[in-house]
Amino acid sequence: MSIPKMNRQWLLVRRPEGAFSPKDLEYHEEPVPGGALRDGEIIVRNLCCLCAPTIRTWMGARARFQPSIALGSPVLGPTIARVLHSANPAYPVGRLLLTMSGWQDIARIDTARAQGQLIVYPVGLTPVECLGALGVNALTAYFGLLRVGAARAGESLLVSAASGSTGSMVCQIGRIAGCRVVGLARGREKTAWVKDSLGVDAVIDIQGDDLDAGLREHFPDGIDIFFDNVGGSILASALDQLASRGRVVLCGQISEYEGARRGARVDTMRLVYGQQRIEGFLVAHYFEQAGAAIEDLRAWKAAGRLIHREDVREGFAALPSSFADMFSGATRGTLIVRIASET
Amino acid sequence: MSIPKMNRQWLLVRRPEGAFSPKDLEYHEEPVPGGALRDGEIIVRNLCCLCAPTIRTWMGARARFQPSIALGSPVLGPTIARVLHSANPAYPVGRLLLTMSGWQDIARIDTARAQGQLIVYPVGLTPVECLGALGVNALTAYFGLLRVGAARAGESLLVSAASGSTGSMVCQIGRIAGCRVVGLARGREKTAWVKDSLGVDAVIDIQGDDLDAGLREHFPDGIDIFFDNVGGSILASALDQLASRGRVVLCGQISEYEGARRGARVDTMRLVYGQQRIEGFLVAHYFEQAGAAIEDLRAWKAAGRLIHREDVREGFAALPSSFADMFSGATRGTLIVRIASET
Repeated sequence: MSIPKMNRQWLLVRRPEGAFSPKDLEYHEEPVPGGALRDGEIIVRNLCCLCAPTIRTWMGARARFQPSIALGSPVLGPTIARVLHSANPAYPVGRLLLTMSGWQDIARIDTARAQGQLIVYPVGLTPVECLGALGVNALTAYFGLLRVGAARAGESLLVSAASGSTGSMVCQIGRIAGCRVVGLARGREKTAWVKDSLGVDAVIDIQGDDLDAGLREHFPDGIDIFFDNVGGSILASALDQLASRGRVVLCGQISEYEGARRGARVDTMRLVYGQQRIEGFLVAHYFEQAGAAIEDLRAWKAAGRLIHREDVREGFAALPSSFADMFSGATRGTLIVRIASET
Repeated sequence: MSIPKMNRQWLLVRRPEGAFSPKDLEYHEEPVPGGALRDGEIIVRNLCCLCAPTIRTWMGARARFQPSIALGSPVLGPTIARVLHSANPAYPVGRLLLTMSGWQDIARIDTARAQGQLIVYPVGLTPVECLGALGVNALTAYFGLLRVGAARAGESLLVSAASGSTGSMVCQIGRIAGCRVVGLARGREKTAWVKDSLGVDAVIDIQGDDLDAGLREHFPDGIDIFFDNVGGSILASALDQLASRGRVVLCGQISEYEGARRGARVDTMRLVYGQQRIEGFLVAHYFEQAGAAIEDLRAWKAAGRLIHREDVREGFAALPSSFADMFSGATRGTLIVRIASET
């Protein structure tokens, strides 16, 4: 695969207020810069971009700990890329990489600076698999549930946004780990999919059902682990039902991505007497251990224990509208935009 | 030591509203019940009672996970007791025990039911030492900081109620662990004591100083560990300055013991991006590992690295007023009431 002459980019030109609009972005192309590779540098071609809700927060103004995309820069986000040139033998030419190089065709990456942000995938996988069933959302589910949540067989697990890209993997990994799993989803269609396809023990429709009553019914002894992608009032309800020594794994807080942050009121005395833990995490912290996790996920998938739903869109031009769809609930599964095909 | 004929008790007869009053208690004495020991039972004589703020919450109505003292029952609380009779060889006659048998002279304990609530102290210690420098508050500091907080050398540590029974031990164990330690205390006298006696790196007077400005000054890179005994607005300020991968160890929440619970508003998105953890704990969870901790504390004390301040009151009659003093700030150090002397 040769390097194209022009590098297409989607630039952030306006910070979204409330809902993201494709008008917050601007199409741009520029010549691919030349020049010899310095030691440790690689040049990659992005093949697929992941539309992840967290990118919406990065479009906002800088907050502490939180990346912020500079105005006029390409949208930051996970991609699967092919290594075209390499001056670091740990990233061989031809291999597929997870990168954070965002919505553009070509990226030159200083691997020393990007340490902890890159994953080299095993050979024999497609780009969509590397962003799907074995992708960063699956790794988020894996490390969040098994490491941060320390899930053990026999425990009860509640998963919010259970039909989502990460949540659906949490539900299934929870079952594989021997947990009793209850999912939360919005509306009949998603609820039915979680129940029928993910093999969970129960599902609560946060639109149609009484959440607090549902939690009391399905967790008579309390929730051992709450894997939370949503935050806000759902988190508050789950905290009310958290068991002694219960853990809340804060993965995302999608209820807050588009609005003012409100967080949650936490009864700290109850955390003390309940010996409970609330912990936020970022999956990149675990990237160095990704190899073993990818092997687990691959084996579970091959054994038919793990299904994954992708919503694959085609073409660089589809990025802005696809990303907007994610917040309107119009997507089903991990949203992947294929921006280049290797033929 | 023989068993006395009468068992003195302080009974809870009214749940305190707001501040505790000695009138919430009633003096009572009743004959010590006789009868042969069943297998696993022991009879102990309480020598010293610990006045701990957490007892105030147990005087309230039952809340989830939280012990509640039944009206008409003796006040529940930690004691150091001598084993008088034993039908369990793990608790030999003559040894000093930490028990939860509360404000009475004599208790018959089913050791199977009390499992995880008893600590057998090494020989050669006084009852006051077993409730003081090597006592349950010291163990709370030890396990809370080193296990829950996972303190490591070079980290920055903030301790609220630093002049208190637990806080003063946290400050010193933090220094022994190689942390940079900043204490919070109320008023000039306590602030000076923390600074001069505990060897902390800095102290902030929460009465006279600007807390937020003080935290920014003393934690330019954020707080790695906040060991919190207070809660409320102090917790909120500390959360604002918590470092990436920072931990909040919730030990007590003394600001909430006498009033309605309010908890704290937590910016959950920030917990995610900061990869931060808030964790409540109870020291009893670690009682099985108390032996090694007591040896560490004893060695540090012998080496002059650990000082401890006790406020020892004399006599069973002194219990109610001593307990009330704790909430008015009139106590200095661990408040211990000696209810029997062994002469």
